[in-house]
Amino acid sequence: MDFNHVINQRRAVNFFDTTQEIPEALIHQVIDMASKTPSSFNLQPWSLMALTHIEDKLRLQRHAMNQPKVSEAPVTFVVLGDRKGWTDENPFVERAFQEMIKTGAATDESRNWFSGARKKLYGGDEETQLAFACKNAGFFSMSLMLAAKSLGLDTHPMDGFDQAAVKKEFSIPDHYWIPVLIAMGYFDQTKVLSPPKWRKSVDDILVRFES
Amino acid sequence: MDFNHVINQRRAVNFFDTTQEIPEALIHQVIDMASKTPSSFNLQPWSLMALTHIEDKLRLQRHAMNQPKVSEAPVTFVVLGDRKGWTDENPFVERAFQEMIKTGAATDESRNWFSGARKKLYGGDEETQLAFACKNAGFFSMSLMLAAKSLGLDTHPMDGFDQAAVKKEFSIPDHYWIPVLIAMGYFDQTKVLSPPKWRKSVDDILVRFES
Repeated sequence: MDFNHVINQRRAVNFFDTTQEIPEALIHQVIDMASKTPSSFNLQPWSLMALTHIEDKLRLQRHAMNQPKVSEAPVTFVVLGDRKGWTDENPFVERAFQEMIKTGAATDESRNWFSGARKKLYGGDEETQLAFACKNAGFFSMSLMLAAKSLGLDTHPMDGFDQAAVKKEFSIPDHYWIPVLIAMGYFDQTKVLSPPKWRKSVDDILVRFES
Repeated sequence: MDFNHVINQRRAVNFFDTTQEIPEALIHQVIDMASKTPSSFNLQPWSLMALTHIEDKLRLQRHAMNQPKVSEAPVTFVVLGDRKGWTDENPFVERAFQEMIKTGAATDESRNWFSGARKKLYGGDEETQLAFACKNAGFFSMSLMLAAKSLGLDTHPMDGFDQAAVKKEFSIPDHYWIPVLIAMGYFDQTKVLSPPKWRKSVDDILVRFES
């Protein structure tokens, strides 16, 4: 599907067709496309819980202002950003480093440099670690929503949930932050899609602060 | 350009062709496409500084580990996420509300509800406000990089900069957070693009924590 169509036609849909499942292979295809997202040092500090069973979706819905779309969508993703996704202890960090060695982007001697750079950029304080998790997981979430649309699927990103309660409900370790929930499925064609929302103009977006 | 091609061919390029400018209209087209990005309550808490003059780009480069691409790219964006982009005082919040009224998604009577919901979801503490800014600006940044690619442009997202120093240099108000810098231009065809980087597999990305 043409990119211009994808970005212009993607809409947050409130109503999902509850009779249409998404084959697992298609869910995986969406995630695989989104996996191409760039990230800080290629650390990819994101994970997904993909809830497809009704019991799981209802467990989530209870902590998400009881929004029906959480369980009506065939799959609802809990997006996770890893605040510790830059540390020496994180297995994907070592993996990223080994892959850098393989491609010649690093040598075993640059291990200390790599560790120091990660600590300096992302490990400064709690704020920096949270920003690292949310920025990168934000990149990934956007790719996921666009990838879904390009494959004929609709999504709805949701902020209306209790962060602490969802983490507790699903035993999510504390170093993760949940930046967003994303319901994914097919728009219920018996409903009317609301008109496209207002967007800031290019002139609204561009700023300078110097006098 | 086909979405699948865009997401698979987008690469963070280190070397930009310094002889090729980007017409202002094309820069605006990229931003306009990215403006379709979804956001919390459609608040769009993002802004961009688009640096095209060499003096400005060199001012930025000094606070960005002196990375040459900051000034070699025809335009380098400073992406801003607004930690106060949910408050009653923010002019775009009122604008979003007025647009909701226009489309029937809200009435004047729902003003208090809207204000309360924003405060509850985003105003809880410093952490929540930062997550709000970085997540949404992350969405926007990803759209921007993909939009650029779809229009034949290359980008490079950068974390290697001094947040406080960049804010001071350009008099950026403190309620903004800079999640990323993005250099944009045309890949220098005299250079060799490094091979695509390793990515986590779908199985790596999907997680559950319950026993």
